Amino acid sequence: MVKQERAVRTRALVLRAGAEVIATRGYEGATIAEILDHAGVTKGAMYFHFPSKQALAEAVIEEQTNISTVPVTSSRLQDAVDLSQRVARALQSDPLLQAGTRIAVETGFAEEPIVPYQQWTSVFRSMFSSAKESGEVLPSVDPVETAEMFVASYLGVQLFSQAATNREDVCDRVATLWRHLLPGIATPGVLARIEPDGVGDLDDFGGIPQQHEATDIASS
Amino acid sequence: MVKQERAVRTRALVLRAGAEVIATRGYEGATIAEILDHAGVTKGAMYFHFPSKQALAEAVIEEQTNISTVPVTSSRLQDAVDLSQRVARALQSDPLLQAGTRIAVETGFAEEPIVPYQQWTSVFRSMFSSAKESGEVLPSVDPVETAEMFVASYLGVQLFSQAATNREDVCDRVATLWRHLLPGIATPGVLARIEPDGVGDLDDFGGIPQQHEATDIASS
Repeated sequence: MVKQERAVRTRALVLRAGAEVIATRGYEGATIAEILDHAGVTKGAMYFHFPSKQALAEAVIEEQTNISTVPVTSSRLQDAVDLSQRVARALQSDPLLQAGTRIAVETGFAEEPIVPYQQWTSVFRSMFSSAKESGEVLPSVDPVETAEMFVASYLGVQLFSQAATNREDVCDRVATLWRHLLPGIATPGVLARIEPDGVGDLDDFGGIPQQHEATDIASS
Repeated sequence: MVKQERAVRTRALVLRAGAEVIATRGYEGATIAEILDHAGVTKGAMYFHFPSKQALAEAVIEEQTNISTVPVTSSRLQDAVDLSQRVARALQSDPLLQAGTRIAVETGFAEEPIVPYQQWTSVFRSMFSSAKESGEVLPSVDPVETAEMFVASYLGVQLFSQAATNREDVCDRVATLWRHLLPGIATPGVLARIEPDGVGDLDDFGGIPQQHEATDIASS
């Protein structure tokens, strides 16, 4: 393996190990020592890519919205529903998304929050804008405002589901959120065609692939 | 002061001091020592009322939904909007509500979450039920489902506002949430009459009164 390939591989290894430890322990609870142990790399190798736990957390937040596989169909509003349902399914098992949630809620009260709101808002704003241009969305809808409201509500819904059922019912709760929101977003003719449960292959989120056989993280 | 009065006063003092420390430090970060110091009571006096930090947190959650001043008007749907706007205003300064949020998001990942969802859901479920009986709410609305969805979304909206503007814009964001939700909740004739920003005296939430001149909690 040439030097650059090895560096890319080490970075992905540490990123995934960091996400797994943070998803289990929380951001405050995660220690560099456990992340290193879990990744099986040296401190030097980790610090080359992430000089601090904060830098690692920022990379987790960035990586989770680095989505390569959002299909574009004739309905960008349905695409938005489908993406949210894909993320909901992935949240049940993907440590990158789970870690992102814990980082967001734990650092949201700090002076410098590390939150994924801007990245997710940008993804949904773009979809609502396209849907508005094609007449799927009511003229009164402001794509930025609606995207921020949706991303915020979605966070609350998955936190509620986490506390209530360890996220087992998160897809149903996301569908319920859409059923309540769509009459205030979609034009009447389009409303009946949008499926709040999502359509297509919702298991494919396109997160980063698993890099190694993870060692168990005992739940604390 | 007779013995019972003193006990009631001490309990309220510790409850408020606990809420203030948790609102500032977070649930994990709050120590019994700082709470005692802030309340100015002995460990024995505190443990008489709250045998653990968890018991104190549970009392904070219970107390914050112990609302004595929810006005009942001819529109229970507007009452629900008004209550949510009253809570939004109170969240900007009321340590009881701020502590409740931190307890909910920090313990939501634990095996035994201490969350206010059930209490708040019950309050809004009751209002949506009455509104449905009086024909304000669409027949398709299930008051329990809608209340859970609303409480969850509301949590996300205030967390988003906390991270974005330290809750300065929380009232506007709550109004935006209602503007998006109301078309999926209210009957068409009622929809135009509901004011998403709330009406009436929204500064009166009716939380527990301040019991003492609080000593400063330096932000960490």
